[in-house]
Parts: sequence; C-alpha cells; structure tokens
Amino acid sequence: MSEPIRIPARGSAKPVTAEKFDAETDIVVVGGGGGGLAAALFARWEGSEVTLLEKAPELGGTTRKAAFWYWVPNNMAMQALGITDSKEDCIRYMARLSRPERYVADDPTFGLSDWEYAMCEAFYDNASTATELLAEKGALEYRHCPDVPDYWAELSEDKASKGRVLLPKGARESMSDGGEVAIRTMSAAALRDGVNIRTGLRVQRVSRNGDGAITGVQASDVQGRLITVRARKAVIFASGGFTHDAEMRRNFLSAPVFGGCAAITNEGDFVRIGSAMGAQLRNMNYAWMCPIVLEKALNHDPRLIGTFSPSGDSMIYVNRHGRRVTNEKLAYNESAQAFFEWDPAKGEYPNLVLFAIWDQRSQDHSASDEYGRFIVPLGADDAHVVKADTLEELAKAITERLTRYVDRIGGLYLSKDFASTLDATIDRFNVFAETGRDLDFKRGERAVEQLFNGPVAEPTGTNPTMFPLSKSGPFYAAILSGGNLDTKGGPKTSPEGQVLDDEDQPIPGLYGVGNCVASASARAYWAGGGTLGPILAYAYLAGRHAHREPIKAVEQKIAAE
Amino acid sequence: MSEPIRIPARGSAKPVTAEKFDAETDIVVVGGGGGGLAAALFARWEGSEVTLLEKAPELGGTTRKAAFWYWVPNNMAMQALGITDSKEDCIRYMARLSRPERYVADDPTFGLSDWEYAMCEAFYDNASTATELLAEKGALEYRHCPDVPDYWAELSEDKASKGRVLLPKGARESMSDGGEVAIRTMSAAALRDGVNIRTGLRVQRVSRNGDGAITGVQASDVQGRLITVRARKAVIFASGGFTHDAEMRRNFLSAPVFGGCAAITNEGDFVRIGSAMGAQLRNMNYAWMCPIVLEKALNHDPRLIGTFSPSGDSMIYVNRHGRRVTNEKLAYNESAQAFFEWDPAKGEYPNLVLFAIWDQRSQDHSASDEYGRFIVPLGADDAHVVKADTLEELAKAITERLTRYVDRIGGLYLSKDFASTLDATIDRFNVFAETGRDLDFKRGERAVEQLFNGPVAEPTGTNPTMFPLSKSGPFYAAILSGGNLDTKGGPKTSPEGQVLDDEDQPIPGLYGVGNCVASASARAYWAGGGTLGPILAYAYLAGRHAHREPIKAVEQKIAAE
Repeated sequence: MSEPIRIPARGSAKPVTAEKFDAETDIVVVGGGGGGLAAALFARWEGSEVTLLEKAPELGGTTRKAAFWYWVPNNMAMQALGITDSKEDCIRYMARLSRPERYVADDPTFGLSDWEYAMCEAFYDNASTATELLAEKGALEYRHCPDVPDYWAELSEDKASKGRVLLPKGARESMSDGGEVAIRTMSAAALRDGVNIRTGLRVQRVSRNGDGAITGVQASDVQGRLITVRARKAVIFASGGFTHDAEMRRNFLSAPVFGGCAAITNEGDFVRIGSAMGAQLRNMNYAWMCPIVLEKALNHDPRLIGTFSPSGDSMIYVNRHGRRVTNEKLAYNESAQAFFEWDPAKGEYPNLVLFAIWDQRSQDHSASDEYGRFIVPLGADDAHVVKADTLEELAKAITERLTRYVDRIGGLYLSKDFASTLDATIDRFNVFAETGRDLDFKRGERAVEQLFNGPVAEPTGTNPTMFPLSKSGPFYAAILSGGNLDTKGGPKTSPEGQVLDDEDQPIPGLYGVGNCVASASARAYWAGGGTLGPILAYAYLAGRHAHREPIKAVEQKIAAE
Repeated sequence: MSEPIRIPARGSAKPVTAEKFDAETDIVVVGGGGGGLAAALFARWEGSEVTLLEKAPELGGTTRKAAFWYWVPNNMAMQALGITDSKEDCIRYMARLSRPERYVADDPTFGLSDWEYAMCEAFYDNASTATELLAEKGALEYRHCPDVPDYWAELSEDKASKGRVLLPKGARESMSDGGEVAIRTMSAAALRDGVNIRTGLRVQRVSRNGDGAITGVQASDVQGRLITVRARKAVIFASGGFTHDAEMRRNFLSAPVFGGCAAITNEGDFVRIGSAMGAQLRNMNYAWMCPIVLEKALNHDPRLIGTFSPSGDSMIYVNRHGRRVTNEKLAYNESAQAFFEWDPAKGEYPNLVLFAIWDQRSQDHSASDEYGRFIVPLGADDAHVVKADTLEELAKAITERLTRYVDRIGGLYLSKDFASTLDATIDRFNVFAETGRDLDFKRGERAVEQLFNGPVAEPTGTNPTMFPLSKSGPFYAAILSGGNLDTKGGPKTSPEGQVLDDEDQPIPGLYGVGNCVASASARAYWAGGGTLGPILAYAYLAGRHAHREPIKAVEQKIAAE
C-alpha cells in the first residue's frame, strides 16, 4: 500500500450511444469495495451474470481500510438476546440525529422527507436479512458486539443503545481489521460463485440506447485503452464518494476539509457520470467525518486512517493559541466539527488546525497503530510526530513543521504566546484530570468517549479519559485537521438503488449503492457501522432489483450527441 | 405584494429537440431581476434582438427588494477622488475572504483556483465599464457612496476600504430603496430600447439541436399553456438561486436555513435545467446570508426582508436559555452564522432560533421599516413582535408564539429558566453598555457594525451600538433564525457567462448570470453590493458575448430522447 497507486486517468463522463461492445454480461458493478462486492454477490445469487470493474489494481476500496463494524438494527443476535428494537423507535432515533432542525417526535415520518423516511425504512427492513444471507452463504460471517454502544446512547430516543453492531467473524480481538477480513471473505465468495472481476479499469461513462436506458459502460485502463462492456440488465455504481476531488470538496461540503481516509480512488466519479445522465444530486453538503493527521492528508498518503480513537489520557488538543477548544474524546464525526468553527469578526477558522499534545506516559502506554491513532508505537511510521523536551522547544518544532504546509492551510501559524498559554492550559486540564471532571468540555462523560479511549496506563484517574500531563518533557505533538471518512452525497436513488432523474423517475438500468449516492442520514453518524450497515442493506435491494430488470435493447441508431 | 403571487407550476427540466417555435429572437433572457435586465440591455445595445421572460407577474425579482448598493472596485468616482484600488490588492482582499483556508498572500492567484481567480479578475476588469455604460445610457445612473466601508474594512488586506459602493442615483437619503429605483430605470430603458418583455412565463427547459447547441426555451404560463421561443444565438439564464426550494436548501447548503428574502420565484430552476444539460455545479454550499424573522420565513411571506440592520441600542439577542451568544451588530452574512452552531455532545443546534429583545427606548427611537429591521414603527406590520410588561410574561408570550412553529424548528422551546437567565444577561449587558465595551462579543467595534446600527435615541453611550436595557417593561421580542438573501451556487460558467460542461467546455448557446450560477466568492460577502456589483459585470460580459454567438441551426431530426 505504500507505493503510489496507478489509476487510469479521467475522461469525459458524457454518456454515449454505443453500438458494439468488447464484452457482455447481465449486470456490471462498478467498484470493488464492500458495497460493490455485496451488490455483485446478491445479484449473482439470484442468477444474473455479473461483471465487477474496479479502478484500483486490487479490490477493497475504502472498506479494506475500515474496521467494518456494521450497524444492523433489530439483528438476529439482538433478537436472540431478547433486545427489542422496533422500527418506529429505530427510525425515530435516526431522524432525531439526521435532521435535528426538523425532528418531530410524534410525526409519522419524524420530520424526515418522504424520501428520507423511505430510505431509512428500507434500511431497517432489509439490513438483517441482507447480513444473514451474506453469513449463510459464507461471504461474510459475523460476530455480535453486544456491548458496543451507539454514538448517541445517552439520547432518550435511543431505545436499543447497545447490540446493533456486528463485526466480521474473523476480525481480531481489537475489532480493527474487519475490513480486510470482509474483503477477503467477500472476494473469495465472489470468485467461488462466478462473479467476473476485473481490476485496473476505470469506468468513465455509461452507454445508453435511444430510449435513454443504460446499455453498458465504457472503461479505460492505465494505458488509456478503452474497454466497453454491455450490461444487458443494469449497471450498479458502488464507486465511493468524492473525498479525493479537491474541487468537489470545496464546492459542495459544508466545511473546509483537507482530505480523508477514503480510498484514494474515491474521486467523485459517479457525481460526474450520474449528473451527466440527469440524476438529481442530494445530501451533497455532508460527509462521514473524522479528525485526520494533516500531514498525511496533504501528502495524499493512501495509508491515512481517520483518527477514530483519540488515544492517550495525558493528551489534549489545543489550537494555534495554545488553548483547548473541544472535548478531545467526542465520537469522530462530532470531534471533526470543532475544526470548522468560524470567527465572524476576524474572518478566519481559528481551529482549522489543532495540535494534539501528549507526554511520555501516553507515549508509553497508549501507542497503537490501530484506529488511526496518532500516538504510534516504536517502529511504526511516526513521521507526523513532533517531539521536544520543553514546551518552548515544542512550539519551535511545530512552527518548523508548519512551514512546510503553511501555504496550504491559509497561512495558519502558532501565535507567539503559544508555549506559555499551553503551559497554563495544561495546568487547568491537570486539575480536571485530578478530579475526573472536565469543567470546560465534559471530556469522557459519554459512553462513546470511553469506547474509543484506547489503552491507558495504570493507575487511571476516576475518569479514565484524563490524566495529568507531566510538566517535564519530553512532549509530543501531532498536527490534526478535520477530514472525511468519505462523503455521503451523490445521485438520489430509490430504496432499491435506482438512480432518479429530475422528476423522480428511475433512469432505466442505472443503479447506485454506498458513498457514491445520496445518503438519507443527512448530517448524522448514528453509530459505529452507520456507514456499512446501510450499504449492505441497499446492496441487497439493488442487487436483487437489478437482477429483475428487463434486458435492454442495443439499438443501432444515429447518436444524438 | 401582499397577495399571494401566482407562479406557473414546475415541469420537467429535461431538454427537448424542438422543431417549431411560437416566437423567435436572437437572445432569450430568463429572469427580469437586476441581472436579467442588465444582460438584456447589454445584448440589445450591441444590436441583438432580445426577449426577456419573467416567471412572476411583474419584473424585479430579488433586486426590487434590495437596497441595490453595488460594489464596483476602482470605479470612476474613486479614481476622481484619487483613491487607488489596484487589481492585485482588490483580488487579494477577495481571496482572503473567499477561501481563507487556502489564502496565500504572495501567490499569483492568492490561493484561489484558476477559475475563481479568472472570475474575480473579470469582475474587477469589467465592473466599472459595465456600470458606466449603464449610467451613460440612462438605464442606471448612480451616486457614489464615498463613506460606506467594506464589511471587512479592518483587514490589512483591504487597501481601499471605502469608496467602492455605488447606489442608484434616485434612491432616497437612507439608501434603502435602490432596488425599486434600479428596476424602474432599467425596465424603462429596456422598453425604450426595444427589449421584448413577457411576464408570467416560467421557462421549464431548453431545446437543443442535434449538435447539443441550445436553440431556445419552452415556457409555460399559469394556465399551463406551453410557449416555445427560438433563440437564434443564445439563452441567458438570470433566474435567481434556490432559496425557496426547501429540498435543495437541505441537500446543498452548509447550514440549516429556513428561507430567505430572495424573490419567492427563486426556486432553483437553473440548477435543474443546467444539470439536465450536463453543467457542472459549483459553490453549492454557500449562500448570501442574513438573519431573518423566523415567522415571515415559515409563512413564506413574500415581503420578508433580511435583517440587514439589527437596530436598537438597548437591544440584545439571546438563545433559548436566555443567554447572549453573539455580537448582534455583526454584518448580516456573519451574524447569520451564530444560528448554525452545533453542539456535538447534545446533537442539537442550540442557537437555531434566537430572540431579539428590546425595551421602550429602542421601540421609540430605533423603529423603522427599512433594511429589514424587526423593530418597526406604529402602523407597520408588527405581527412578528411579541410584547409583555415583565420578563416572565415575555417568556410566556414567546412560548405561546413558539407553539405555532415548534414542529418546524426541531421542537425548540424556551428553557424553564429563560426569564431569570435573561434578567442576569441584561444586567451583564447593561454594564457593557455603560462602559461602552462588550467584553463578551466586542459589539460595535468594527466599522460595518456602526454602518448598520440605524437610528438611536439621544443621549447615546460612548459606544452608540449599546445602551442599557430598562429593567421595567414593556419588553419586546422578535424570533429570528439564520437565512439567505439568496443562494450563490449553480452551474459553473466562464467569465463570459458560458455554462460549462463536465469537461469545462461551453454548452453552445447556454449562458448564466447572477445567483442562478456559481459565484467565485465562495463563502465571502466582501462588502455591501458584493452581490450586485459582480452581477452587473458578468451581465455585461454575458450579454456582449452572447451577441457574438453564431446562429444555431434548428435541425429536423429524430430526437434521441
């Protein structure tokens, strides 16, 4: 993964009217991450001939980098344990977080739009069925995580706040490598069951017939050779979001984001291809968010993992003035928001970059190369870590490091009193740590904050997320910014994955699943696996629905454009 | 304006291949606000035959409701006064505010993308030429406002912080009715010079020929009758943003917005029509923002004007807990941001609705029906004002009022200790007012805050934006939320207004100007008239460029869709 990945260059997304094809299948699936593999399997198991095209040299996409928790409401394991998780309660919880500004507790759709409600309902109704089928077929066996809480377990609307999370069965104890396991088992099942897989092919555009129905795709390889594939029934896009298209990020996302941990092949291909087919775009403003190590993002490091676990008890985040501005242990999607605060009088993002600061205790006892932790063990890649013996020297070292990036972060530098303010900030934090109560930001008071706290040294304080920082060095620092796991906007689909045009009519034969299409979750990150749970449910619906599509004629007529 | 405006219903935006037309012209302009009228005039003055179609029963759009200040860098009046406003300095100021997270002071494009820089440069290069021509032709004569500061006059990057603002010559002393004056004079010039104007016609879609070039439009009236107009050369959209399309707002804007003061005909028509033609969408996340009176927005009151002037010195904003959370006098675009703060632990927008509170002094001396002030004089529409003799009674009256809207604002209610906290908040504010220094939010310390302070009673304090609130009633309140003037995203265009496809190629004959297309200003509101200044410059470029378009053939061939 450390070598640069060669990706075929981007061409026009404009649809064509193709007459001949190099290959032919029932269903083309675009993208070989979790969503694409699942959609391919579900369609294949129905009996369709399926070809899966992946842009990267190997399968996996963003999923391979993920822990692959999957959030499955009312799953079989919950039922076996006697945990009630009614549809009404579950969708109410989702609505409460997705559209808080419109939430109505006793409304039939809880304030969601009809489309949002229908998407949430389809997820609830199909997630368990989909995951049971994947398990039964040996493509993705799971183990239940009865103790993992939702990210908003404290809300009164969360009636089943533990038990919805599943994990690939073969994942390690720490639950961090589920993605690799899932890609391995799903790929093996796809090969076993006859899904035709081609890697290194970038789908550039779709072809359509005179009725506007999709007839296939045109793809190209790294040499620029064009390969055309007829899809008799349908094309299902599962090609990921637009995290790595800087222009799309700047022009759609609600916040200034420097990158993210999505597969670097996630360049918004389906925003372009779907738009060119007349799809409506929805939920373009929101992303699955997390803090990220700034340097890895700016260096386009394909190994970047979001900071899911802000480890270390004797660790704080401070801004360029040396001040704490947030609860460091918030769930990652929420933690990212602190970076985007706007100063309406100075015209700047004062927290655009934050500095994680920790001491030897956290370095010795909280280092790990899992869950995107920035405190990494000896021998791991620690190029992002700045180290110094005193706070003054740390400020100097950070300043030196910032000079490499200052032209890409709006000229952000440390203020002159950074070290002295940081010193006072540590004193204040240390009192909180001693007492176990963070009077400024309530660190560690919620279940999710303890969930991602990571390993800490003994003895812990009364609040295991906090311990006083040593006032004698060495001190360590990492530069963080707000980032994406991936985006969650794109063409609007029906619950069955059919891409919808300007009048909410399906574009015949065009499907989408996963982060490449619009998520009805709006701004919410309901729980761990709130990405992959819905993706598997929608892949199930799309794969099966696409299987039932009529065969599209390839008409030989004069192309209109 | 108080009767509901009948607007033709929306149909499909999908382009058609038309064979016959009801009428014919060189250039069709869609939308009769400031941008459309100006584009029509500029094209007409070149010699093209121009037909302008307006959806509403009368011309004016959002412009009619505006003060119509227009921001014109390096204008003739500045030059006459010897004020230097170099291109480099001016664009640096724009870049500093548009993309603060990427701003580089000494970069050739100051961190802007090439497209953003080209758009800013075209604005700088053409704004004065355009406005001088409008004046010369008697369509829009101006008077110079040498004392009006930019909204960020304190930034070191603002080298010409006063003098860029022009105003329609016939506007009243208070400068609030420029829009009515401008629409009157531009309409008169359009009639005089032979622009063919049709109102009550909603353009639904464009027609195109087999080469994909635009050949005209299909429009419908309130009776649903279809009217087709051939445009031999080009169609210029100037149809406004998507402020009044709730679904687009929720799926594109960076913040939860309940509406705005754009003309109620601004429903995002060109996002749909341009998307259906394969245009790229840009800057969809940002809007021209302002606080708005919540009730007028939720009631879709076409008379709603944004709160440009938060008048009253003995006036504060508090949230549902009775606490001040912002500087009330910030320029409107920045003031709106306070409403969108997110609480990442509680999962709510704590300031989604704020309450302006004032006393009899401000009621007596700061009431006005200009600039969207919420403190209105006797006889004006004061349905949005809540009044009570004590703070306890005021809390009750606000609560009662909120019950009408609570299902549309996420269940937001006053907390139980609202009145007592408000009492303490007033005490604290009153100390600030006495000393003239707001230790919490620095109210009144910037030039723009004094600019929009409005009339206040004598004697004023040392800081004219603050005066102690009386602790004896009556008390007044208005319910505010964050809103739009209008959105600023849509199809990407060249500086000449040509709408660009997925590969940055112009779609032949398709143009756009104003809030219906992508603004390169990104998140910035540089100054008063930062909307209309660029619009006039781009209308000049688009109108003249469209005039030089070749005539498009209307081919009779079998439609491809």
